[in-house]
Amino acid sequence: MGSMADLFWPGDERADGHFTDAAFLRAMVEVESEWLGRELEVPELDPAAAEAGGNPVIALVRLLREQDLEVHRGLTSQDVVDTALMRMAMHAVADVRLDLAAIGHGLTGLAEQHRDTPMVARTLTQHAVPTTFGFRVAAWLTAVLDADEDLARLTFPRQLGGAAGTRAAMVELGRELPTGIPRWHTTRAPVTRIGDALVGCTDACARIANDVVTMSRPEIGELAEGSGGGSSTMPNKANPVLSVLVRRAALTTPQLAATLHLAAAQQVDDRADGGWHAEWATLRDLVRRTLVAVSQTADLVADLRVAPDRMAANLAAAGDAVLAEQRSMTDDPAPTYLGDAGAYVDQVVARAKAALG
Amino acid sequence: MGSMADLFWPGDERADGHFTDAAFLRAMVEVESEWLGRELEVPELDPAAAEAGGNPVIALVRLLREQDLEVHRGLTSQDVVDTALMRMAMHAVADVRLDLAAIGHGLTGLAEQHRDTPMVARTLTQHAVPTTFGFRVAAWLTAVLDADEDLARLTFPRQLGGAAGTRAAMVELGRELPTGIPRWHTTRAPVTRIGDALVGCTDACARIANDVVTMSRPEIGELAEGSGGGSSTMPNKANPVLSVLVRRAALTTPQLAATLHLAAAQQVDDRADGGWHAEWATLRDLVRRTLVAVSQTADLVADLRVAPDRMAANLAAAGDAVLAEQRSMTDDPAPTYLGDAGAYVDQVVARAKAALG
Amino acid sequence: MGSMADLFWPGDERADGHFTDAAFLRAMVEVESEWLGRELEVPELDPAAAEAGGNPVIALVRLLREQDLEVHRGLTSQDVVDTALMRMAMHAVADVRLDLAAIGHGLTGLAEQHRDTPMVARTLTQHAVPTTFGFRVAAWLTAVLDADEDLARLTFPRQLGGAAGTRAAMVELGRELPTGIPRWHTTRAPVTRIGDALVGCTDACARIANDVVTMSRPEIGELAEGSGGGSSTMPNKANPVLSVLVRRAALTTPQLAATLHLAAAQQVDDRADGGWHAEWATLRDLVRRTLVAVSQTADLVADLRVAPDRMAANLAAAGDAVLAEQRSMTDDPAPTYLGDAGAYVDQVVARAKAALG
Amino acid sequence: MGSMADLFWPGDERADGHFTDAAFLRAMVEVESEWLGRELEVPELDPAAAEAGGNPVIALVRLLREQDLEVHRGLTSQDVVDTALMRMAMHAVADVRLDLAAIGHGLTGLAEQHRDTPMVARTLTQHAVPTTFGFRVAAWLTAVLDADEDLARLTFPRQLGGAAGTRAAMVELGRELPTGIPRWHTTRAPVTRIGDALVGCTDACARIANDVVTMSRPEIGELAEGSGGGSSTMPNKANPVLSVLVRRAALTTPQLAATLHLAAAQQVDDRADGGWHAEWATLRDLVRRTLVAVSQTADLVADLRVAPDRMAANLAAAGDAVLAEQRSMTDDPAPTYLGDAGAYVDQVVARAKAALG
Repeated sequence: MGSMADLFWPGDERADGHFTDAAFLRAMVEVESEWLGRELEVPELDPAAAEAGGNPVIALVRLLREQDLEVHRGLTSQDVVDTALMRMAMHAVADVRLDLAAIGHGLTGLAEQHRDTPMVARTLTQHAVPTTFGFRVAAWLTAVLDADEDLARLTFPRQLGGAAGTRAAMVELGRELPTGIPRWHTTRAPVTRIGDALVGCTDACARIANDVVTMSRPEIGELAEGSGGGSSTMPNKANPVLSVLVRRAALTTPQLAATLHLAAAQQVDDRADGGWHAEWATLRDLVRRTLVAVSQTADLVADLRVAPDRMAANLAAAGDAVLAEQRSMTDDPAPTYLGDAGAYVDQVVARAKAALG
Repeated sequence: MGSMADLFWPGDERADGHFTDAAFLRAMVEVESEWLGRELEVPELDPAAAEAGGNPVIALVRLLREQDLEVHRGLTSQDVVDTALMRMAMHAVADVRLDLAAIGHGLTGLAEQHRDTPMVARTLTQHAVPTTFGFRVAAWLTAVLDADEDLARLTFPRQLGGAAGTRAAMVELGRELPTGIPRWHTTRAPVTRIGDALVGCTDACARIANDVVTMSRPEIGELAEGSGGGSSTMPNKANPVLSVLVRRAALTTPQLAATLHLAAAQQVDDRADGGWHAEWATLRDLVRRTLVAVSQTADLVADLRVAPDRMAANLAAAGDAVLAEQRSMTDDPAPTYLGDAGAYVDQVVARAKAALG
Repeated sequence: MGSMADLFWPGDERADGHFTDAAFLRAMVEVESEWLGRELEVPELDPAAAEAGGNPVIALVRLLREQDLEVHRGLTSQDVVDTALMRMAMHAVADVRLDLAAIGHGLTGLAEQHRDTPMVARTLTQHAVPTTFGFRVAAWLTAVLDADEDLARLTFPRQLGGAAGTRAAMVELGRELPTGIPRWHTTRAPVTRIGDALVGCTDACARIANDVVTMSRPEIGELAEGSGGGSSTMPNKANPVLSVLVRRAALTTPQLAATLHLAAAQQVDDRADGGWHAEWATLRDLVRRTLVAVSQTADLVADLRVAPDRMAANLAAAGDAVLAEQRSMTDDPAPTYLGDAGAYVDQVVARAKAALG
Repeated sequence: MGSMADLFWPGDERADGHFTDAAFLRAMVEVESEWLGRELEVPELDPAAAEAGGNPVIALVRLLREQDLEVHRGLTSQDVVDTALMRMAMHAVADVRLDLAAIGHGLTGLAEQHRDTPMVARTLTQHAVPTTFGFRVAAWLTAVLDADEDLARLTFPRQLGGAAGTRAAMVELGRELPTGIPRWHTTRAPVTRIGDALVGCTDACARIANDVVTMSRPEIGELAEGSGGGSSTMPNKANPVLSVLVRRAALTTPQLAATLHLAAAQQVDDRADGGWHAEWATLRDLVRRTLVAVSQTADLVADLRVAPDRMAANLAAAGDAVLAEQRSMTDDPAPTYLGDAGAYVDQVVARAKAALG
């Protein structure tokens, strides 16, 4: 959806039609349609009308009632908004998981290919001991699998409680009502869990991007983005643009998830006086930024250039100091230096294959 | 700008054309035009093109160069983006201050009118001692004046450093260059100060809105919004919608300002690898939400309904307990109970008149 | 542990010995002892020594080596710190869950007792429709059960990787090493998941506290804390102190969890250059504040005073307006007005009994 | 104060006695003493007693009244806590500024010494154009001067309002009361301004530390901490520990300042029901972490090792690509490549000398 692409957030168009105004409106109309049992057309809604009632449903219902008087009977705004948000979130999370799977497959291949590619490990920025690039990729893959596990556990409940959760009008109307679903109009774990899980995704993407920006520094030169970004003034420069933009996202999403928790912690009465309203744009931004970040990371991984020769050269230049620890442990004149790194790579690869299919 | 109004953030249209894509593009073209010394037309820019270089300038320069080859010579992307952001921020802050002034004038009138209107003070939600509504309004006014003081101190420096801040190419080109302006390409106090000051505004607005939602609870009934918002299901209900939406904003802006600081704390090298890029959308959202909140607060204050009779009734109902402290201090059979509240109201009103004109 | 009680955080002593310096030291010595296969004494460690190496292990190992030269062989600081933090977290989460269970039992009793106690529902602070206090308590209980579900899913893995995760020295030493446990030295989901789940607890506690501060306003008077806090100047005042302190906690914990995510998103290389170090105090504060909040909430719930007469009076005062919605739905001259509220209370109570035993 | 040093926050002892429980208690007793006009002894206060009233004053007053019945007359808890916090903050900010001045002097010397030391500029991690190390130091110095400017503007007002700000009891008591000072019991700009300015300090320190960790990577080798930190397992390793710990702080402080704003935005009535209480520990942590960070940065700058030869070698290795931009601007066969970098260094040095004396 070009209309949502955003000069202030390069790459935003990757989030496509998720959580756009059009998608929100459509999802709300779907909720009303299902309640009514008949399909309603999606009207043109002036966003400015949303303010009058503090939420977009009131203006929507007014328009829909021009089509059908019986619309929205027994529902409250929160039923419609919450259910619509959860539908949109469900679709978005499914797309996030597709990209995580692509990242996971790419990393699995890299880990296998570089299972035994030696490089120098770095701790607190300094050379530490030998490791392999495959072992490093296993760490990236672990982050991605952990993030996906949290997404897989999410649920996207509908909301159906009427004016104050008691379904009073619905019962008067003689509607058959589902039982067993929670009412979460003032308890927002369904929202905060989504937020927390999405931040887990940008954490995982940043884990990869941080290494790429570091290892693609010219003095290190062990990695490079496949197609570096240009410069407006220095034509020969190839910037690790995807990594930079992924890192950008991960600087912002934890605070968005915190806002969802703060909103949850403001719940009061039978509908909150601000906490509920703070969720919508926050969740939107969190979802879209995560979608952009996983998409950019998928491209990054797919096109990553690995330089085993530079890894070997940096390890050699690190010299004997990085071998000192192991030598102090053994009389073996030729220790392997790599511990069980290879076996651990195999183990993470097996986990990935089981998880991602 | 209807195009920016936002179903996820009711009231967004109040922020008008500030920090829209169109405004950003126009501001960047103005920067290029001034550097070139000749006016350039604003081209149509596909936001998706912004990703290729990690920022929107590269695509813009490509388009502008189809008009004029000499465009952007010696500049770097950051010169253009930073200067454009500061221009937009300057205009936005000016508009925020207009609304703060309107709020301040409204509150000044309320404080004078209710200088001696008695009500019960509440601490930790419980009845404490007598106070006046004018004294309460003086607190609101103090918050607004403090916020405006911080805005008044802001500066909006241009950025002019070239590829890495050294102006190397500019000097080669023989340009006359301004001296005495800071280069802040990797030190972001100009941005974080704006962020902090804007949060001060939403803090101040929330200070007012919190009292309005509390005092307009039906059991208290001391205040009401002039035109309460509707309900999608309960036609007679009048919700304090403006206050609710203001409170919503204030739950989100502190985390946006924190993101600006986190981005500042990520500055490294001669252009940051993510910290810079995280600023744009964050500042945009912070600015627009502040504009919406001050505008909504201005309406709220202008139309606020005050019920001195309910204030008197609640104070009377609070009974003797709220008079106990003073009585314990004095033998006077009829203490005033109000200390220097009136004099303090006068003092704050005088400060407001001096500050707001 | 009185030594940790804190004038700046009233109630801190409720967190007892969790995540104190002494507990941290003891947990680290336990990790070293188990690795060594022999019990080590806990030495006196000067906290100031922790700075020299950037973490407390280096100074600890120096002291322990005065007892036993073979200590810490093959381990790295992060093995010890991470495993110690996880042990402490496991114990703390167990205690949090004990308090959540107490809260849950208390709320279950309240929900059953007040299953049919009528009161007025409030949305956006305004009277909406009739509800019951039991239905409100069911919402509180839902929040608590959701929070506990997230805690129940947590794992507390040990860390065992050596200098850079590859276990190189351990293998040289011929140690038998566990397989199948993750290495998470640079992928921090085990930490962020704990953080997110703890914030879920303070969200849930605040959900309750918000209603208590609101409903114990004198004009509403439907609830009161069993033993209100005193005032330094107004002797007759009974403040809802526990609720206030719970609300305080919930304003701070989301930002602590966000810090854990930011730290996770800063992971780089084979040990992060700051992101790791930011976790320790952040997790400590998050854990202790959660422990305090759940303990205070347990007391709050145990002693909560409910005033059904005031609930009835406020509902009556709300008048016909709150009955209008249902009347518009039915010709029934005496609608129940309460929908399936009672059945829903039963459903949540059943969930609680299944979950809490 | 060893008693505050903290295993979870290595370096904490650098914050000395600032904002300790003892300092808080002493400051509160000073406030009471001045109000009484006679010096009171500082009693032993059990921190656990602070919970009963929700703040530490109630327990303190009870103890003090055993010494003197007339203590605290007309004051409220908030008068004492707020004034005590401001006193402590004033002392702490003065010490922060001493360290900032030391950093500033150190950087001024470095900037002058390396005004013309060539190195390669890096943007988005990649080689860009030539610059000088002096120019880079000028950026660090700018950050420090900006941070100090914000500290210099802070005020630390006392609070003196009595039970609800109206000074009712004080007036009854016939006290002469100061006029012209604000009452900020529910408008917290004095607190949030301190918070924001302190984060500016950690931003500035991180600006330096980020470059040190990057430029001290072995492959780059342009900088090194004077006395690197040790490793628990690799004896030859010299870690940039001070920089790492400074970066750690800067990851946490923005969220603390955000919490202060959130607390400000929760102000309601005549004393907030949680927002006030959330400030104390938050401000304490923010102050102490800032003190630690500026102290560590002062040491870092004082002992920084600069390697002009490595800078020259990296610049040479960067090759012709980094000269391409200037060459495209000029026919001059030997452009200077450094623009006005030297003049800008002079300008920033002059600003520093004027500001720091």
